[in-house]
Amino acid sequence: MPEKVIPDIVVGRLPIYLRALQRMLAENRHVTSSQELGERLGISAAQIRKDLSQFGEFGKQGTGYSIDYLADQIRQILNVDKVWDIAVVGAGDIGSAVARYQGFANRGLQVAMIFDNDPGKIGTKIGPFTVQDIAELEPSIKQAGIKVAMIATPSEHAQEVAEQLISAGVQAILNYAPINLAVGEHVRVQYIDPVIHLQRMTYYL
Amino acid sequence: MPEKVIPDIVVGRLPIYLRALQRMLAENRHVTSSQELGERLGISAAQIRKDLSQFGEFGKQGTGYSIDYLADQIRQILNVDKVWDIAVVGAGDIGSAVARYQGFANRGLQVAMIFDNDPGKIGTKIGPFTVQDIAELEPSIKQAGIKVAMIATPSEHAQEVAEQLISAGVQAILNYAPINLAVGEHVRVQYIDPVIHLQRMTYYL
Repeated sequence: MPEKVIPDIVVGRLPIYLRALQRMLAENRHVTSSQELGERLGISAAQIRKDLSQFGEFGKQGTGYSIDYLADQIRQILNVDKVWDIAVVGAGDIGSAVARYQGFANRGLQVAMIFDNDPGKIGTKIGPFTVQDIAELEPSIKQAGIKVAMIATPSEHAQEVAEQLISAGVQAILNYAPINLAVGEHVRVQYIDPVIHLQRMTYYL
Repeated sequence: MPEKVIPDIVVGRLPIYLRALQRMLAENRHVTSSQELGERLGISAAQIRKDLSQFGEFGKQGTGYSIDYLADQIRQILNVDKVWDIAVVGAGDIGSAVARYQGFANRGLQVAMIFDNDPGKIGTKIGPFTVQDIAELEPSIKQAGIKVAMIATPSEHAQEVAEQLISAGVQAILNYAPINLAVGEHVRVQYIDPVIHLQRMTYYL
């Protein structure tokens, strides 16, 4: 059955809605509205209603949204009603921080392994993980069937690492190295570079 | 003189163009085209030309862009032809990684101070910085005239820290805590939450 193609910008807002809904649940809240969500997020209520309507009918006019139900539905849409294992490449400051990051809990993702090429780091512990030799990257990822990876290597290694990850079966890469990756069309890449975010704000100062 | 209001989404692409141009300069390149930039970035050449045309005329039809000139112009537009000091709040894994991050060099930003509320961390060194008591946050930031900050505290402290930062004069906040901040209209906030980026990709898996 062909599915309607949803603009990626809409898909990109769903995790933000889900995070806010999960926060409301943690506050013991059970019903919300597009107005309230919008105020929390700085997004218009109309935008939220329009985004959600792309995926179905999640609330009733006048009674708002059941937070539990809407969160469950968004989790299903985003495929995070299961837990994805993540491979982290690079055990420097950022890779280590990511491997120990507490923020993955209950959000459908968990770090499963971390690799580095530095003999001084291989075999050492980062949180619960033992740093693996990058030479084991392809067989380990293939064997574990891992589809999601984070690159936290120096820029000059990021493209090569991306190619190894893809050849091992990875289809989604979050790249912390401040460089654009060239990948095939079947692979998704997202970027985290604090300078990009900061420069977007210095424009207004 | 009233300036044309540029959509923030366009402003948000300029740092990405600048990063690619700086990379080309590092490769000893001096001329590029919107086609080449677009291929590197996965953005259409037409989009790049349209974005840049909002700010002026930076290239000549047929001869392409001088990379040095275009990079200089974008630096000026983004106000990163000078160097902004950054205050980091939170000396945990992420705050420490950010404080030691090498990727700020030559991009108009540098970490200048780091704060924490943990007596076990206050006074310790992170890279070249001594962790300061968060009680000193407002006077230190005011005295230094700092306008840019990063929050890397647990979620439950992020809003309070943001309010202290703003009261000290900060106008641009990069928030690593996975929670939305409520701030006044004169303050810019950007977010880095790896789960938001990852969930945007698991949708497609």
